[in-house]
Amino acid sequence: GYSQLSRSLYGLDGAAEWESIRAVLPELAGKRIVDLGCGFGWFARYATAQNAKSVLGLDISERMIDRARRETATASVRYEIADLETLELPSASFDLAYSSLAFHYIEDFGRLATTIYNALVAGGDFVFTIEHPIYMAPAKPAWTVDGEGRRIWPLDGYSREGARTTDWLAKGVVKYHRTLGTTLNTLIAKGFSIRHVEEWRPSDEQLGTHPEWSEEMDRPMFLLIAAQR
Amino acid sequence: GYSQLSRSLYGLDGAAEWESIRAVLPELAGKRIVDLGCGFGWFARYATAQNAKSVLGLDISERMIDRARRETATASVRYEIADLETLELPSASFDLAYSSLAFHYIEDFGRLATTIYNALVAGGDFVFTIEHPIYMAPAKPAWTVDGEGRRIWPLDGYSREGARTTDWLAKGVVKYHRTLGTTLNTLIAKGFSIRHVEEWRPSDEQLGTHPEWSEEMDRPMFLLIAAQR
Repeated sequence: GYSQLSRSLYGLDGAAEWESIRAVLPELAGKRIVDLGCGFGWFARYATAQNAKSVLGLDISERMIDRARRETATASVRYEIADLETLELPSASFDLAYSSLAFHYIEDFGRLATTIYNALVAGGDFVFTIEHPIYMAPAKPAWTVDGEGRRIWPLDGYSREGARTTDWLAKGVVKYHRTLGTTLNTLIAKGFSIRHVEEWRPSDEQLGTHPEWSEEMDRPMFLLIAAQR
Repeated sequence: GYSQLSRSLYGLDGAAEWESIRAVLPELAGKRIVDLGCGFGWFARYATAQNAKSVLGLDISERMIDRARRETATASVRYEIADLETLELPSASFDLAYSSLAFHYIEDFGRLATTIYNALVAGGDFVFTIEHPIYMAPAKPAWTVDGEGRRIWPLDGYSREGARTTDWLAKGVVKYHRTLGTTLNTLIAKGFSIRHVEEWRPSDEQLGTHPEWSEEMDRPMFLLIAAQR
């Protein structure tokens, strides 16, 4: 299950894309942060160690929030169970909105982007990752081999947005595929400036440590976006 | 050859993505425009009909420039043979930089983006299309069929940027694959604001007229970007 993934066992350093995220995060010291889909609270504790002023961690999983609370003994961190589909946040109350691999489970990204825009102060940062639409789109999202034995990613349905049902970790998980263009245009329409768009790939150093990640060069799995109100 | 393509025979209306481009173009009346890779001059004549103040059309093909000159009898349009890899433009001299399906032939997009940024006035627009990186990336960029008979686009090498050699229209044509993230981050680093990112797909109306375009729903062929200095 989820708690056995490298990122659940080893936290941020167990996530391949963490280096890339950290490179685009603003200075965290003194910041008021909301973490949307905080899971076990790894990022909340990291931000606290970086002297963030406060962190509000939100997750729909009661079990994750329970564990996050047990493992975080800091008054500046607060965890709440929340459904990002219906979330409301106080306006102009945060300097940074952060989210790791949660928004592809959200059907109404436009509503959420508006909520986050309004919750940020002017100049506030919005940094998030999602599964890359190339990874999410296919009817059968798994490596296959072409007639010449070459490993290929069987892309189809990229421009057909909407629900995708997979059996990853649990049966019948529903994710919502949006093109990269749709995600960016949604942010722009809400008023965000796009600062950085990264289709994660392993670095040469990471490929040295994890040669099995070379398949990640064939299709991106994660998308990292940094925007600013 | 190139002159037999629908877009060469019928001009802008023969290009599937033209409706999408027109939707993001600024008002052209009174504008000074540079068209990078102008081909036969279709866009220059369209802009003139929209009362553009002037159009400078640039193309590396002497044959195309010759025909563009023959077919355009307007003093406000000037055509020049130019290599976009080494192009220089006067600074702050244009209100709009436009390009259709040319930049994927350019190796040094960063240099070109700097040239265009400097050539635009503050607030000037930059609207261009390229082949979509999903379309360009694969070792074998052609539809294939998976084990269950499903049409798939055999994606590989998406994160390996660089030259791709194809035999489209002519043997050994070299194109330069860049990820969508690289193209956007290059623009942002030069100072552009991203206004719109569209991974072209046929509209329902177009699918009615051209049912054969339904395959375009499986992987995007064109990328349209609008940015602003």
